[in-house]
Amino acid sequence: MRARYKPWAADLIESHPEIVIPDPTLLKGKWQQEFGNDQPLHIEAGTGKGRFIVGMAKANPEINYIGIELFDSVIVTALESVLESPEGVPNLRLLRVDAKNLADYFEKAEVDRLYLNFSDPWPKTRHAKRRLTHESFLKIYQSILPADGEIHFKTDNRGLFEYSLVSISEYGMLLKDVSLDLHANEPEWNIMTEYEEKFSKKGQPIYRMEAQFQEN
Amino acid sequence: MRARYKPWAADLIESHPEIVIPDPTLLKGKWQQEFGNDQPLHIEAGTGKGRFIVGMAKANPEINYIGIELFDSVIVTALESVLESPEGVPNLRLLRVDAKNLADYFEKAEVDRLYLNFSDPWPKTRHAKRRLTHESFLKIYQSILPADGEIHFKTDNRGLFEYSLVSISEYGMLLKDVSLDLHANEPEWNIMTEYEEKFSKKGQPIYRMEAQFQEN
Repeated sequence: MRARYKPWAADLIESHPEIVIPDPTLLKGKWQQEFGNDQPLHIEAGTGKGRFIVGMAKANPEINYIGIELFDSVIVTALESVLESPEGVPNLRLLRVDAKNLADYFEKAEVDRLYLNFSDPWPKTRHAKRRLTHESFLKIYQSILPADGEIHFKTDNRGLFEYSLVSISEYGMLLKDVSLDLHANEPEWNIMTEYEEKFSKKGQPIYRMEAQFQEN
Repeated sequence: MRARYKPWAADLIESHPEIVIPDPTLLKGKWQQEFGNDQPLHIEAGTGKGRFIVGMAKANPEINYIGIELFDSVIVTALESVLESPEGVPNLRLLRVDAKNLADYFEKAEVDRLYLNFSDPWPKTRHAKRRLTHESFLKIYQSILPADGEIHFKTDNRGLFEYSLVSISEYGMLLKDVSLDLHANEPEWNIMTEYEEKFSKKGQPIYRMEAQFQEN
């Protein structure tokens, strides 16, 4: 997700190293120490403005969360949400990094669940490798999740969802749950992203699936 | 699919044993002899009024087709379509039987592809076993298809499609192709069923998938 250029974003990010971790490679294998507890860790690749991950972290204090986003101009909004929270969000960290390098920041099984929400659909076939459900990314996720780890995926983009169903199936993952119109019977635990609210207000269906890696 | 009671249907069906096979158990393992050629065999479970299977048989004379439907009152319409065809439909047969008994009529690998179109969704959870994508049916299909045999599935019913994606994945089948709005980019080879035309005219999406069994 890109937003307009915000020259002050980098400064604000750098002045909050306790939230936006400057060098997450140093914490590989040590995230429970960083959080100071042994709670499970759920991460979101492509956090955008952070509404989902900040909402999840506040709703589930018994889980640690990390939001991952490449662009300063949007992750700064997630940071602002944390700074505006009167009691802080102690179970949340943000990483300003590229999802393709996740294995540099997490050990095998250090992450208990991965969320992908409204990822860039990269609609052109020649860009399929950039889709966050391409085989090459699934391989990376598998390297940081447990053997039976789960990916929870939401999108409004029909093409990306169709592609992802096939890609995930071909990779040998199991579909655990599929919804082709999440808001038709919205579960109480659903936390909407910025995109989700925008698109579902327009009456577009939101597609969702849970997929699980299988032990070999 | 049920239709209104047609007292004359049974008579018409019985007077055309060359099309609606009276005792298909006798032809188990002998369908190529029945058709008089060694073409591949594609079957449809739940043929209804037969628009799909009759259309496919006419469009693809190099493939043999069998439409399977339990109810006289609808299969008779498929029979009438065949009888009204000036040149006949030599590569098509109809069976008035229950899909749960498919293994009584076909040997392992005697069927090359199975179609399921607009199957009864059986929306109540306690009726899940009756859905034609329930594990117990997948097992039957596997027993008559080749090791890497395919099921092609279409429906307008969101709940049935969601259920089927999970059921087929859990069974260890691979998704080959998924469309969540078939008519948004309708492929030229698509032949519409009666239901499909009705629902897609209302603007409802038609869901489709191809799934393949995996060799053990």
